[in-house]
Amino acid sequence: MNSFGTKFRLTTFGESHGDAIGCIVDGVPAGLEIDESYIQNEIDKRKPGLTKFATQRKESDKVQILSGVFNNLSTGAPIALLIFNENQKSNDYKEIKSLFRPSHADFTYFKKYGIRDYRGGGRSSARETASRVAAGAIAKKLLEKFDIQIRSGIFAIGGIEAENLDFEYAITSEIFALDKLQEGMQKKAILEAKESGDSIGGCVFVKVTNTPVGLGEPLYNKFDAALAAALMGINGVKAVEIGEGVNASRLRGSQNNDQMDKNGFMSNHAGGILGGISSGTDINLKVHFKPTPSIFLKQQTQNEQNEIVNFNLKGRHDPCIAVRGSIVANAMVSLVIADMLLLNASSTLENLRKIYNR
Amino acid sequence: MNSFGTKFRLTTFGESHGDAIGCIVDGVPAGLEIDESYIQNEIDKRKPGLTKFATQRKESDKVQILSGVFNNLSTGAPIALLIFNENQKSNDYKEIKSLFRPSHADFTYFKKYGIRDYRGGGRSSARETASRVAAGAIAKKLLEKFDIQIRSGIFAIGGIEAENLDFEYAITSEIFALDKLQEGMQKKAILEAKESGDSIGGCVFVKVTNTPVGLGEPLYNKFDAALAAALMGINGVKAVEIGEGVNASRLRGSQNNDQMDKNGFMSNHAGGILGGISSGTDINLKVHFKPTPSIFLKQQTQNEQNEIVNFNLKGRHDPCIAVRGSIVANAMVSLVIADMLLLNASSTLENLRKIYNR
Amino acid sequence: MNSFGTKFRLTTFGESHGDAIGCIVDGVPAGLEIDESYIQNEIDKRKPGLTKFATQRKESDKVQILSGVFNNLSTGAPIALLIFNENQKSNDYKEIKSLFRPSHADFTYFKKYGIRDYRGGGRSSARETASRVAAGAIAKKLLEKFDIQIRSGIFAIGGIEAENLDFEYAITSEIFALDKLQEGMQKKAILEAKESGDSIGGCVFVKVTNTPVGLGEPLYNKFDAALAAALMGINGVKAVEIGEGVNASRLRGSQNNDQMDKNGFMSNHAGGILGGISSGTDINLKVHFKPTPSIFLKQQTQNEQNEIVNFNLKGRHDPCIAVRGSIVANAMVSLVIADMLLLNASSTLENLRKIYNR
Amino acid sequence: MNSFGTKFRLTTFGESHGDAIGCIVDGVPAGLEIDESYIQNEIDKRKPGLTKFATQRKESDKVQILSGVFNNLSTGAPIALLIFNENQKSNDYKEIKSLFRPSHADFTYFKKYGIRDYRGGGRSSARETASRVAAGAIAKKLLEKFDIQIRSGIFAIGGIEAENLDFEYAITSEIFALDKLQEGMQKKAILEAKESGDSIGGCVFVKVTNTPVGLGEPLYNKFDAALAAALMGINGVKAVEIGEGVNASRLRGSQNNDQMDKNGFMSNHAGGILGGISSGTDINLKVHFKPTPSIFLKQQTQNEQNEIVNFNLKGRHDPCIAVRGSIVANAMVSLVIADMLLLNASSTLENLRKIYNR
Repeated sequence: MNSFGTKFRLTTFGESHGDAIGCIVDGVPAGLEIDESYIQNEIDKRKPGLTKFATQRKESDKVQILSGVFNNLSTGAPIALLIFNENQKSNDYKEIKSLFRPSHADFTYFKKYGIRDYRGGGRSSARETASRVAAGAIAKKLLEKFDIQIRSGIFAIGGIEAENLDFEYAITSEIFALDKLQEGMQKKAILEAKESGDSIGGCVFVKVTNTPVGLGEPLYNKFDAALAAALMGINGVKAVEIGEGVNASRLRGSQNNDQMDKNGFMSNHAGGILGGISSGTDINLKVHFKPTPSIFLKQQTQNEQNEIVNFNLKGRHDPCIAVRGSIVANAMVSLVIADMLLLNASSTLENLRKIYNR
Repeated sequence: MNSFGTKFRLTTFGESHGDAIGCIVDGVPAGLEIDESYIQNEIDKRKPGLTKFATQRKESDKVQILSGVFNNLSTGAPIALLIFNENQKSNDYKEIKSLFRPSHADFTYFKKYGIRDYRGGGRSSARETASRVAAGAIAKKLLEKFDIQIRSGIFAIGGIEAENLDFEYAITSEIFALDKLQEGMQKKAILEAKESGDSIGGCVFVKVTNTPVGLGEPLYNKFDAALAAALMGINGVKAVEIGEGVNASRLRGSQNNDQMDKNGFMSNHAGGILGGISSGTDINLKVHFKPTPSIFLKQQTQNEQNEIVNFNLKGRHDPCIAVRGSIVANAMVSLVIADMLLLNASSTLENLRKIYNR
Repeated sequence: MNSFGTKFRLTTFGESHGDAIGCIVDGVPAGLEIDESYIQNEIDKRKPGLTKFATQRKESDKVQILSGVFNNLSTGAPIALLIFNENQKSNDYKEIKSLFRPSHADFTYFKKYGIRDYRGGGRSSARETASRVAAGAIAKKLLEKFDIQIRSGIFAIGGIEAENLDFEYAITSEIFALDKLQEGMQKKAILEAKESGDSIGGCVFVKVTNTPVGLGEPLYNKFDAALAAALMGINGVKAVEIGEGVNASRLRGSQNNDQMDKNGFMSNHAGGILGGISSGTDINLKVHFKPTPSIFLKQQTQNEQNEIVNFNLKGRHDPCIAVRGSIVANAMVSLVIADMLLLNASSTLENLRKIYNR
Repeated sequence: MNSFGTKFRLTTFGESHGDAIGCIVDGVPAGLEIDESYIQNEIDKRKPGLTKFATQRKESDKVQILSGVFNNLSTGAPIALLIFNENQKSNDYKEIKSLFRPSHADFTYFKKYGIRDYRGGGRSSARETASRVAAGAIAKKLLEKFDIQIRSGIFAIGGIEAENLDFEYAITSEIFALDKLQEGMQKKAILEAKESGDSIGGCVFVKVTNTPVGLGEPLYNKFDAALAAALMGINGVKAVEIGEGVNASRLRGSQNNDQMDKNGFMSNHAGGILGGISSGTDINLKVHFKPTPSIFLKQQTQNEQNEIVNFNLKGRHDPCIAVRGSIVANAMVSLVIADMLLLNASSTLENLRKIYNR
């Protein structure tokens, strides 16, 4: 089940060390300007090999549009995007081809499918998220037309939290840090982990502004539920919070309720969603990433023959997956909102009348 | 979009103060024993009016099976379940029919659909969750056949956390408390909120044991993503954690990785899911509920005419939705697992050979 | 898989001799006037027991709306419709409970599910189609708002074909005959079959007028493909033709092409659909029903114990399922068009701009 | 909506004159042997440019597997297949870029999307069916493991019908003729149409043997309904018949019923499907293709400016799309059966027990 979304729909393919990765984006409304350079620009944000805070795997991640765009406009046909893999060092994986790396998906893929592409995690590798970012770029292009803005950045690294959210600053930061004052400490935490052969967890903040009121399809495709699935489905995510999040479970109603004045909501504990439908206020999301399971310290595990193995990983890995994860989270949220925008189009008779003019 | 699940599929209908609520459960494998009393027993757990910790609305919540069961066995046909509403005091809502109760879905439903059934929240009411529990009972009956157990209870109320998880005790507790020692404090927190016209948030813990290895359909119907959607879609939920959850973002890989010995995983930070697929270890979930938005203190809001209104709510409401929410969370998890169990059936050629014997 | 449609979505339940049949209609745009009498009126058209050309089973087929409608307007919530069964003479089926009636679904249901509700065919009975007609009534109510008209009637009985299509006349005909001049012969063919304990096949014509150009979602939810599925899925249908239909395979391109003048298409061999998208001209469909498999002549079959059995059916059956099938075909086409109307709403950026006004 | 199937699921992309066409095949059970040469062999059957009975467009149609196969076995990950376009003579279409070719999808695509890729019909071109055949090859590989055979060929050309169905002969025939004795007349009809600048319709027969009893998911994913959708959705198909087909509407029940003896059904009017479920007997399908709309005779049409235009088409076109259509029909049927095979896996509790061994 490699498709995501209902009307604005992404289907991806590809493994970490296969020939190529890519996707088909279906349901893109006709008439949207799309050019490769815009998509490329988004992909480049999560490209590996750029800083010392990310894996040193070098991939040019050059994207090609194969279909669905004619004279720089979407035609309503599915848009296929293709990225060839270049820097697959499969040899890195020969030694570990029959063992289950701790907290990776090796064990579960093997048990489920009876076969696994051990090279770099195969299908379970975060390399696939490049396709999500590429598709997310098309979604963002659509959302731009409706002045909807999705921004993200690093909220916390190893528990060191931002105290101020500056999304403009995050764009320029090597680790997409939201708080310039905390950035130094956060970087230091990553490098310390890296230098000791370890890794570290982090938390991403995503903020959506100017969402139209009314997005979300209750009761089983609620906006918040769709966002939770989109975000929890990203490699390494273990918790998702919306609005007040975990803290809501500690509050009283009088503290958590968002009262209204003439201009709308006077607070935003809800995080922009009520009853599974967008309220028009900012959507605030926290996405918690576990530390990269690929560490370079000695570990113990099983192999396919059910023997105990002690081993040291080699290879090139992100010391903190949350960093590039912030780009992926942004893309996933974009995809959800594009889908909700399309799904809501038929919610009322009045909407249909506007379209069919009858 | 009122359907949930892919192969084991729930579709619900009904409003808080309409004639009836109910659901159709599709995809139930043929040959499963189903009787009304089993389903009734599950529904009774979340029935309102039972204790001072829940709303005083009195509903017998008598369920009828209308189809899909013949001689007490499922036939493979869709199973329709019907519960008539009895204790609808619509008059409670006359005074507030044109105003948007803070942190309820009144505002968003009105803006999305241009019309709303103001009686008790209409479709957005948690009353609908009785259908989820009824359907969940069928899912649990199926899971029993495979020795899969789903248990739940109250982990925290207003920040007062359990230190010990005793699921057997929770069954007997009026608030489904997991920790007998904390129960008194937790109850006190609820009653204090209630007595002051307020409400309080809480956190539910769900544990699944003995799940087969291999459930979950990557990449876009991963087990954890599906659980996150199922749980975040419950009324009032603002955060979902799996395994180490939020805390994972604070740890190093060496702390969070689950190494293996001969018997399997030596720890369970992952919470039973790796790469979106069940690993066979316990699935541990935390579900954070906001405090009930219905409080009896004076509040300010808008009405449909965009005027500011100060008002006092009346009616009958749960002071802490997490309490009955623990039953709903349990049901939703059951539905997800039943679906995953069915979806996984065709994951390998070997599985198909067993079935078709060719 | 008891759901039909994507955005305008029907889910049905119920067996021939169970307690009730019914359905949930999801995705109905909010703001549509809906009243029970309109739905009842549609159901009454296919109600059994009305003429000597239909089964004598007496069912009042009284429909109740359980949800989704408030103050006579759809609210956007799912609409549940319920019809209790009344005239279940299960005893009629005791004698045949373990044998497989020829050309019925007894054999295949038993082999697929390992259990079957033998009473009247259980889930496979055409009784379920009352739910389709009820749901179709809601679809038609929506289509009326857009001046789209779906009409149907009997084109042929036992090869006796209409030479003229008079849909107004069909409404008044006991067998929904489209051609008053052929009606006598067609009725005679039915009665002759009936009197000899036999049954007879027939062909239904469905015509849709004033469809907006642009409905249909290529490439795998084309308008014609969706109609074919909807119609072939009706009990007893063995062939579906669109436009020139079977005859198209005998023609040359110069004969079959629809050229255009200023006013549009100069002919309509296509039957209103090109490339899976409506062209705005009439949609013309022929639906071929086999003769009712329930006949009263001696037949030979197997039973569940794999023994040969000779038997005579009893009970009450339509001598020609095409007659009431014309109402069901009409309903199914209505459901398809309603779905296509909603799905097309997001086909262009321009449509979305009209809705969101941004 | 460019996806087909539920569990065994095809998503295609690409236009006639774009860079490439291709598809993602999702849900392929792990452990199936797959190699490019097998897929290539199937694609070569429908490759253009091979005989005088097909278009002279020359395409090598070389297929590449980009993902989902490791060591020649399917891994459970999505399988992406890519075919680059080579012989796009876009110039052929410059003259007609703003006019609507009669009985092509030019008019409807333009009206639906407001923009169209006029080069060779863009997305609406039958070129896309190469992807279906490629995906169908994977489906057939799976069905081979279960000894299910799908064969097809030309039943009729311009009304000249086969009297004998020889599927082995069809493989060797330039027009896939099923009846060697009629082949000469059928070829002559095609060449006569071609030489006069015209085209001709035809009928394809598809036969499936050795299908397991029990495939098909009633009530809204019945086997026959799914086949009808699959076949009616092929470019140029205007009618689909199953078993007795159109003729069933002319018969009496006593003529059309399939009685049983010890060995099973004594006749096969049903065409292998009862109640939407396979009965184990041969599935017999007739698929009626209209004549190619691209003819070289003078025709009249509108252009995008709503002016009348008289024109003569140029380019390279099949004189009879049914011929290569027989390969596409075969592929679509294969995809449906593979999907049904997977969907049925969870139909009974007993099936699940076999898989989970609990």
